[in-house]
Amino acid sequence: MIMSRIPAAPGEAQGNLTDRLLAGLPAEAVLTDPDVTASYAHDMASFCPAGSPAVVVLPRTVEQVQHVLRTATALRVPVVAQGARTGLSGGANATDGCIVLSLTRMDRILEISPVDRIAVVEPGVVNADLARAVGEHGLSYPPDPSSWETCTIGGNIGTASGGLCCVKYGVTAEYVLGLDVVLADGRLMSTGRRTAKGVAGYDLTRLFVGSEGSLGVVVRAVLGLRPKPPRRLVLAAEFASAAAACDAVCRIMAGGHVPSLLELMDRTTVRAVNDLARMGLPESTEALLLAAFDTADPAADLAALGALCEAAGAGQVVPADDAAESELLLEARRLSLPALEAVRGTTMIDDVCVPRSRLGDLIEGVERIAGKYRLTIGVVAHAGDGNTHPTVCFDAADPDESRRARESFDEIMALGLELGGTITGEHGVGVLKKEWLAREIGPVGVEMQRAVKQVFDPLGILNPGKLF
Amino acid sequence: MIMSRIPAAPGEAQGNLTDRLLAGLPAEAVLTDPDVTASYAHDMASFCPAGSPAVVVLPRTVEQVQHVLRTATALRVPVVAQGARTGLSGGANATDGCIVLSLTRMDRILEISPVDRIAVVEPGVVNADLARAVGEHGLSYPPDPSSWETCTIGGNIGTASGGLCCVKYGVTAEYVLGLDVVLADGRLMSTGRRTAKGVAGYDLTRLFVGSEGSLGVVVRAVLGLRPKPPRRLVLAAEFASAAAACDAVCRIMAGGHVPSLLELMDRTTVRAVNDLARMGLPESTEALLLAAFDTADPAADLAALGALCEAAGAGQVVPADDAAESELLLEARRLSLPALEAVRGTTMIDDVCVPRSRLGDLIEGVERIAGKYRLTIGVVAHAGDGNTHPTVCFDAADPDESRRARESFDEIMALGLELGGTITGEHGVGVLKKEWLAREIGPVGVEMQRAVKQVFDPLGILNPGKLF
Repeated sequence: MIMSRIPAAPGEAQGNLTDRLLAGLPAEAVLTDPDVTASYAHDMASFCPAGSPAVVVLPRTVEQVQHVLRTATALRVPVVAQGARTGLSGGANATDGCIVLSLTRMDRILEISPVDRIAVVEPGVVNADLARAVGEHGLSYPPDPSSWETCTIGGNIGTASGGLCCVKYGVTAEYVLGLDVVLADGRLMSTGRRTAKGVAGYDLTRLFVGSEGSLGVVVRAVLGLRPKPPRRLVLAAEFASAAAACDAVCRIMAGGHVPSLLELMDRTTVRAVNDLARMGLPESTEALLLAAFDTADPAADLAALGALCEAAGAGQVVPADDAAESELLLEARRLSLPALEAVRGTTMIDDVCVPRSRLGDLIEGVERIAGKYRLTIGVVAHAGDGNTHPTVCFDAADPDESRRARESFDEIMALGLELGGTITGEHGVGVLKKEWLAREIGPVGVEMQRAVKQVFDPLGILNPGKLF
Repeated sequence: MIMSRIPAAPGEAQGNLTDRLLAGLPAEAVLTDPDVTASYAHDMASFCPAGSPAVVVLPRTVEQVQHVLRTATALRVPVVAQGARTGLSGGANATDGCIVLSLTRMDRILEISPVDRIAVVEPGVVNADLARAVGEHGLSYPPDPSSWETCTIGGNIGTASGGLCCVKYGVTAEYVLGLDVVLADGRLMSTGRRTAKGVAGYDLTRLFVGSEGSLGVVVRAVLGLRPKPPRRLVLAAEFASAAAACDAVCRIMAGGHVPSLLELMDRTTVRAVNDLARMGLPESTEALLLAAFDTADPAADLAALGALCEAAGAGQVVPADDAAESELLLEARRLSLPALEAVRGTTMIDDVCVPRSRLGDLIEGVERIAGKYRLTIGVVAHAGDGNTHPTVCFDAADPDESRRARESFDEIMALGLELGGTITGEHGVGVLKKEWLAREIGPVGVEMQRAVKQVFDPLGILNPGKLF
């Protein structure tokens, strides 16, 4: 990585910005080489529009972040906060002339308390690093987005991210107890608590969770932890139709079961995984359900769940005998997105969440939409939550195919809303779903959300152009 | 209850208000008899200041609530929303000349879905009625404030209330998925979702939870449910010191146990219960710990927990053999507040929550404060959450004792903050802890909270004088 004290853009404004940033940051924390700054332009939604940052800053302290925000306010320069840029909605994409504020170097775990079951962390801590660190104390930090080996806690908080274990353990928001936030004008505000409970005043902590860097910059978080559960055991069940698999999901949830994972892969996804990895999944499979328990007696719980799958018409039901077999079964699920990406080179990943009783209707609808637009759309779903990822496969070099991809992507969101769902279960709005947020929450909702934004960011410098 | 179309106060303003309310409400829903309206003046914190309502309205529909708010906005009349008025901080106390908006008649359970694990309810539904109704579908609604047989879901949402089972199942906030809210100007806004997950825009749902009627009026809530757990089994452990009991709590939590209840009663409380109910608790008890599990094998879990209590120095450890014995053990806990109330006629109940590692320090400090102010202060605590209710017993007819009671009450909050805790774990701020909210969240926090209030209530008509 090339570091430079010399601003790349020779203009006076750029020079002024860089000089003022350098007054409170070490030279190695201020990047202006355009080749370097361009690499910070976007997250994983590479097809979303992204501007060119004027500068990238990599602070290590709260005071440095405050300096960046004070400078941005003084010069009216937009600030785009970033973690590991593994987001899928363009929420961390740069805007032209912005300061990219990368929090990745603020990566210290400040405290882990087994008695209080909390961790205090900086925003740049990688999710998996935290999970491992608390694991050494017999604790777990449950939220586990697919990108957990690289994504940061700050990014998780910004996007209110989910993961595979939400069906039992809930989402990121449920684990954020308190925050230190640098406001747009550089002032530091603490929200929330480090206690198990607390209701002093409005819940501003939750307001920041999922706010995509548009209300302030999280510089410290108090996170709730849980005792480490027993090792999970996985079962795979194969169905001759997606409808039967969705019926099984409904039976499992109505039956009062609490699996720690309940995932669905549709036919398209199963075939894509076979093509990529030759995993030997039966090509006749129309839907594959993966379930896990991390209870005291997972084998017994899996047996009961397997019986419900059979009652719903499952062909094969394969419970794993041990942890190694369990991980093997999950490998197919992990390969789903790379496999679908391999189909046409690029994917656009929907994140529609519907009441789980409508899961079957959504999957059926996606199949219809795929036909209508002559596209491959694979569905992987956190089925237990009704949270689906219909993944539109397209060739980004083909304008007509790209247009059809976007139209089908939108039509899936419309279907989700029609079924009583939301346009985003865990990926956030970013730039990808801006128009759709308004459709979901309505004009009064948008008006109030904009007014809240105005309270925290009166100059509109925090991640402008995202959410609405 | 006396109903009247005729305004009690003969003034023109009062007449105008009542007439305009009657334009959109049936006569039986508009109460103006001063003897009747006075009975709506305050919640259970009877010693907190309360004004005289101009009128009490009891709407049955969303449209009627909208009419009330439109009228209030047009005439600039304050609106105080109320549920069952079981709150303990004066949050539902009337202000002079206000409209008391009682939501108790909007008490329909609109939907219960075992597959989606949600209930959709109106705000006036009584907590226990909901618990029983969902129980018939094999589901549970966990939040269980002590007043659950009378308190309403709307009140629970307004105060973000807790209960006995929070240590395992969390608080009200974690079960509120979506809301319909009537804004100050009468417009209707929907927030959140009816799906298991959802991150579309800012989390306004959580902003309303615990906002004490100061941002809008909840008229419908989508609540998350859980499968009904197995029947719980309870254990009682008796300690020769509060410090030893707190040590046991720390060992239990650090040991990765997840009891569904973990309560503590100090010596003062144990004696008060003995005095009230002759339960025959040993008078030598310095602290009593009650624990429960609702797991598949609660006896085994209780045995492990009992061993930790013994390691921490417990004298007697008494596990219940069955549900009946369990309920008997919990009876002492349920009688704690009535018993402490009987000591001097009135109580002021603190709600300090500290990191559970500091629980022992808090209880020791409360004992010191009781001595300093020559008062009886009993501590009952949701020990597993570090959420304590130091209960100051005083004679409200004695001005000096009342003054000392208030001073000791405040000193306990100061101690809670000093120990890294919060002034309120589950009862809210109301009027009782207004000055203390500012001390806890600091000037920047107060400024931002006030600004958020301004967004939703620009005229300041919603429950004025509460929170800050």
